[in-house]
Amino acid sequence: MKRIAILGSTGSIGRSTLEVVRQHPDRFRVSALAAGNNVDEMVRQVEAFQPQLISMATEEAAQAVRERISFPLEVAVGEEGLLAVATAPDATDVMSALVGSQGLPPTLAAIRAGKKIHLANKETLVMGGEIVMSEAKRHQVPILPVDSEHSAIFQCMNGERKQDIRRLVITASGGAFRDWSREELVHATRDQALTHPNWSMGPKVTIDSATLMNKGLEVMEARWLFDLPYDQIDVLIHPESIIHSMVEYEDGAVMAQLGTPDMKGPIQYALSHPERWPLETKRLDLAAIGRLHFREADMKRYPCLRMAYEAGRAGGTVPTVLNAANEIAVARFLDGGLSFLEIEAMIEEVLSRHTPQSNPDLEELFAADRWARDTARRCGIQAG
Amino acid sequence: MKRIAILGSTGSIGRSTLEVVRQHPDRFRVSALAAGNNVDEMVRQVEAFQPQLISMATEEAAQAVRERISFPLEVAVGEEGLLAVATAPDATDVMSALVGSQGLPPTLAAIRAGKKIHLANKETLVMGGEIVMSEAKRHQVPILPVDSEHSAIFQCMNGERKQDIRRLVITASGGAFRDWSREELVHATRDQALTHPNWSMGPKVTIDSATLMNKGLEVMEARWLFDLPYDQIDVLIHPESIIHSMVEYEDGAVMAQLGTPDMKGPIQYALSHPERWPLETKRLDLAAIGRLHFREADMKRYPCLRMAYEAGRAGGTVPTVLNAANEIAVARFLDGGLSFLEIEAMIEEVLSRHTPQSNPDLEELFAADRWARDTARRCGIQAG
Repeated sequence: MKRIAILGSTGSIGRSTLEVVRQHPDRFRVSALAAGNNVDEMVRQVEAFQPQLISMATEEAAQAVRERISFPLEVAVGEEGLLAVATAPDATDVMSALVGSQGLPPTLAAIRAGKKIHLANKETLVMGGEIVMSEAKRHQVPILPVDSEHSAIFQCMNGERKQDIRRLVITASGGAFRDWSREELVHATRDQALTHPNWSMGPKVTIDSATLMNKGLEVMEARWLFDLPYDQIDVLIHPESIIHSMVEYEDGAVMAQLGTPDMKGPIQYALSHPERWPLETKRLDLAAIGRLHFREADMKRYPCLRMAYEAGRAGGTVPTVLNAANEIAVARFLDGGLSFLEIEAMIEEVLSRHTPQSNPDLEELFAADRWARDTARRCGIQAG
Repeated sequence: MKRIAILGSTGSIGRSTLEVVRQHPDRFRVSALAAGNNVDEMVRQVEAFQPQLISMATEEAAQAVRERISFPLEVAVGEEGLLAVATAPDATDVMSALVGSQGLPPTLAAIRAGKKIHLANKETLVMGGEIVMSEAKRHQVPILPVDSEHSAIFQCMNGERKQDIRRLVITASGGAFRDWSREELVHATRDQALTHPNWSMGPKVTIDSATLMNKGLEVMEARWLFDLPYDQIDVLIHPESIIHSMVEYEDGAVMAQLGTPDMKGPIQYALSHPERWPLETKRLDLAAIGRLHFREADMKRYPCLRMAYEAGRAGGTVPTVLNAANEIAVARFLDGGLSFLEIEAMIEEVLSRHTPQSNPDLEELFAADRWARDTARRCGIQAG
């Protein structure tokens, strides 16, 4: 019986995790849940899964939940609440599915508490890769990927020796604008950018798919998760998102993991590994799909991908600055304050102003994160 | 250091095996080689790899080799020679790559002598699946697949539990006539049938690719190699032959092995398993290939595939009869004595005349094999 704590239980990954839990009542018990301000959904989750502890982002939301739950339940709040959920004493497994840099401290706390980590939060590795992986090693805690791409790579490494790997190939749908030229992108609108062809995701990730920043962040995560240099991590455009990623070996064999686009698959795999359990999802029917397409991920067409590789290679505080600048740029684009191509221009501008720092500790990472956000907010990028 | 004996060293698989050996001089020693009547090639191989024992099909060929080799070398002949090579005392591994039913007895002898088996000969499992697998179990001898499809499935099962498998998906190029209608096939010629789009293989296998009998035989091999029922083995047309085969698991994940069409890959994997070694082959470039296609393998379009499933399910002597009738039918087609569609008609006719026998021993299998060949040779199929 796995006893699971979920950081970010009302988000897309959190809900899918609970759907997986629901399909296997004999295998799971929900220990603790942490969410933001979605009181209605949290109340539904508490009633359905009866955790002992939950946490909400604000005292107001916490109070609203308390008032609607009749049975005894510990309700914590804010950053402290996240840490309490991440280290809930009876939890064996932690699903780290918060959005943004707030996900890093509780994930690190969960590692130090010896919990098995199921990682969906990108910032944990993009910002804290070096610290997180060395702590995970020290505490002998496995970090299992939940992203479909990293899960695919992880599955393709089953029973293989790391030294036999030639390279990882992370597939990218190419997002909403994959068939647009750079010239056409000048006039790309918010609504056009939010129409992702394959996956149903939040707006931030959907924009990151269109810029390929999403893939850039995944390349950085892969570097830490699988402990391989950037030269051994490639990106390939594959519009159908059926091959979730691949591993090429020294003998020329390429192992790939395929499936319908449904996050329940990777989520369950992280939880069931090294076993596989039955899962109710749409089955892959390649004959019905008929064809799969592939093309190169051109760094000139996708400057965000290029910047991510450069930031990853630079290391230190640079990936943190890239990520923070991207978050602000995307938020400003979603608010109508930036055009689509100004996202990459703003990130480039913030990076150019940054003085990189090597071997930062957690405080220094968060200082760089704040600096990048402030700089991005004040940055006077103009449409061009 | 692996010490290898090769049954069928001058054939396509045998030569590729020696190319793999040549790439890894520190890992292999060639103990013994068996071939048919290709004296020139055998002399070249003996000089390059210096085995202690070889065998040729006839005394004449054996004598011709003896006369051209200056150093001491044991040269055996015929069926006895095959058994001697298969059980060469210092060999640790046997590559079973003879063509046809003659491959079964020496492979069985190698199993009983405790050699690790690398299996390319189809008849070993199509005819003798039940006997061979139970002997392999009894002698705790691993049977590693060398066919690209079975190697792919084997690789896709790496680190997985058998009970988690939902089904195997064997890919088929569809052969030379994959875009022809049944009506057009009436006039298909020998030369047209011999033009395989992807793989360079012998004429028999190339014709079997066009009828999909090849795939039917592979389905039967997969049934024995992986100990799964026919209901869990499917065939999918995939013209590019880039995905070599797949395994679908209970959680909906599909693992696939991809590569350029080159038999050295599967051959080396059988020899290197569970490791992978560097191999000089053309690297897979999916962006350059651009697209992969898939369609259903229609049993009405491919009656040979249907007959193979039926024969496999019937068991006993029926697969042996199917295989023998197919060999004669293909030989008669290649000689110009049958039209393309008469291949399937002849097999159907021979099967209809056969009285199946359950749990046959080796002698009974060979009796059924001879009966089917005689019946097929005398069978008065007429074009229609």
